[in-house]
Amino acid sequence: MGDQQQELRIEEEVAKLVEESKELQDKAASLILKSSKEEQIIKQRAVSIDSAIRKLRSSVVSDGHIDPKLAEKLEDELNRAKCILVDGDASSFLPGKAESGFLRMFLGPINVRATRKDVQLKVKEEYNSYKDRTAWMFLLFPSILLVLRVWIWNGCMPAFPVQLYQAWLLFLYTGLALRENILRVNGSDIRPWWIYHHYCAMLMALVSLTWEIRGQPDCSQKQKGVQLFLIWATMQGFAMLLQNRYQRQRLYTRIALGKAKRMDVVWGETSGVRGQLQLLLPILFILQGFEAYVGLLLLRTAFVGVASEWQVVFSGFLLLLMAVGNFANTVQTLVVKSRFKAKMKRSKSKQQLD
Amino acid sequence: MGDQQQELRIEEEVAKLVEESKELQDKAASLILKSSKEEQIIKQRAVSIDSAIRKLRSSVVSDGHIDPKLAEKLEDELNRAKCILVDGDASSFLPGKAESGFLRMFLGPINVRATRKDVQLKVKEEYNSYKDRTAWMFLLFPSILLVLRVWIWNGCMPAFPVQLYQAWLLFLYTGLALRENILRVNGSDIRPWWIYHHYCAMLMALVSLTWEIRGQPDCSQKQKGVQLFLIWATMQGFAMLLQNRYQRQRLYTRIALGKAKRMDVVWGETSGVRGQLQLLLPILFILQGFEAYVGLLLLRTAFVGVASEWQVVFSGFLLLLMAVGNFANTVQTLVVKSRFKAKMKRSKSKQQLD
Repeated sequence: MGDQQQELRIEEEVAKLVEESKELQDKAASLILKSSKEEQIIKQRAVSIDSAIRKLRSSVVSDGHIDPKLAEKLEDELNRAKCILVDGDASSFLPGKAESGFLRMFLGPINVRATRKDVQLKVKEEYNSYKDRTAWMFLLFPSILLVLRVWIWNGCMPAFPVQLYQAWLLFLYTGLALRENILRVNGSDIRPWWIYHHYCAMLMALVSLTWEIRGQPDCSQKQKGVQLFLIWATMQGFAMLLQNRYQRQRLYTRIALGKAKRMDVVWGETSGVRGQLQLLLPILFILQGFEAYVGLLLLRTAFVGVASEWQVVFSGFLLLLMAVGNFANTVQTLVVKSRFKAKMKRSKSKQQLD
Repeated sequence: MGDQQQELRIEEEVAKLVEESKELQDKAASLILKSSKEEQIIKQRAVSIDSAIRKLRSSVVSDGHIDPKLAEKLEDELNRAKCILVDGDASSFLPGKAESGFLRMFLGPINVRATRKDVQLKVKEEYNSYKDRTAWMFLLFPSILLVLRVWIWNGCMPAFPVQLYQAWLLFLYTGLALRENILRVNGSDIRPWWIYHHYCAMLMALVSLTWEIRGQPDCSQKQKGVQLFLIWATMQGFAMLLQNRYQRQRLYTRIALGKAKRMDVVWGETSGVRGQLQLLLPILFILQGFEAYVGLLLLRTAFVGVASEWQVVFSGFLLLLMAVGNFANTVQTLVVKSRFKAKMKRSKSKQQLD
């Protein structure tokens, strides 16, 4: 009799569980439906406000009848509205940049956009700490190879450690390119060139893997290109560490000052770390010059005929391309920054006059 | 006077826009807060129902006092509850498998989990069509190389096209491994081995890139290993096409029958495409044998001393490892399937007796 009671009890419990799962399924379905409807409404609203801001801004700029002082004030107000939209929680409802072909190629059509602003900032923070960690490797790996080359390998490096380094570079650049594409989907305004730059670097690491390093007739002559590349990479690692410190400070300031006024944050950042920028810039320009020099040297060795593999020509060309692109983009960034600074100074002195 | 009116109008519009952006920001923030609270509640409920099902199932199985026929019925009911939970909208609220180290290494800590079941199924569908597209390449690329080897290259392949193929393999396997990890996070029950298998294949493609193909003394002797690998790859491409067709039919059946009863779906699937499985299995076993044979051959060439580069030993070892792992996992899958089939038959004949 006890058995039958026990059986009944378990039967009831099972039936209850099935019922509860059905209920939960219904609740989940209705929650998903409801919140996607509410999201849709906010999305439409965000898009319409965004386009209204853009329209009004262009009419303020083009309308000659408005008093210039007033026009500037109105523009500032419109910037404020834009900042509220872009830096706050509403930003996740604005349509993001479309997923790039690179992401779709590697991951397929998945959604990599974080819905909350604090998660987006965390993604950026992790990207910076990843760059920090790898910058140390980027500095140490080639410099150790260069030291061992003189100390142990008598000027002629064995293939394996160099290839290990090249494979690591391929992995590193793939990771960076993927992360940067994800950041872009999440609303980062990273310049497209820096992503293309990492595509070039991926390609170069791949090509250099197929390169015969242990040369036939004259090893140290043949490894001249590799050696130059390693020296450049060591310098690059040093510059990356500096650059990371600079960019990290920018992000911290932005998080600390909160989402309200993006413009103030940019202003605060430029004045706060100007000393570092003055150290960083000459190093960047020297590096870009050296990169172009290594590229030209590789092209020369190929055409003079010491090493006429296609990999040499290709790597030389890629290095040259990257050097020119990096230079152009660094200069453009500086121009934008200084224009912005000049504008801020003007409006500040005007406020004091008023 | 008209100008002043115009100015006033624009000023008002700007002020209104700022106000509207603030409102939208508040609405967005409160929507995010509200829906994350509601999600939290459903999540907790899903976890507690899931653990209740597991507890009840183990007590049904272990309790000797319950009539075996009743126990089976109860188990079926519990399976039904589990299916409702796992296959429906509620599934997105169950904690998923943690993101793997592989994903974090390449992408950083982003969320790749789709919240809706239909999106998850779409991801799986795209994964299958990606495999389909690449299977054709997988078949054509090595077979073209093999044909050109005889027709044009006189038995000695140039390095570039082979390296291009190896680079493509590296890209392909990286994409597959990333997608499979994403599928796993989205609740797919793909066996971990198949992902490890693609890690091995990535490693092998990377290593083969550093391999000098154009051999010094006897080219066609040195390329014996590459040739065998290409033959195996051609066969593999053929098997992939068959396998994809088989797996695609499974998925279609699942989508068509809807979310309600997963068990029925699995049952329907096995009976529907049994003919194809009988064609696929022998091919898979032959391939695995051939893979092991190529691996052993590479190891032999390395130890006899025709080509003693480390790449040969490494590739031979990897091929052997993959062959053994593939074999073990195919057999295990078959055992699970046949056990399940036997159980279904038993319960069917019981129902007829009743």
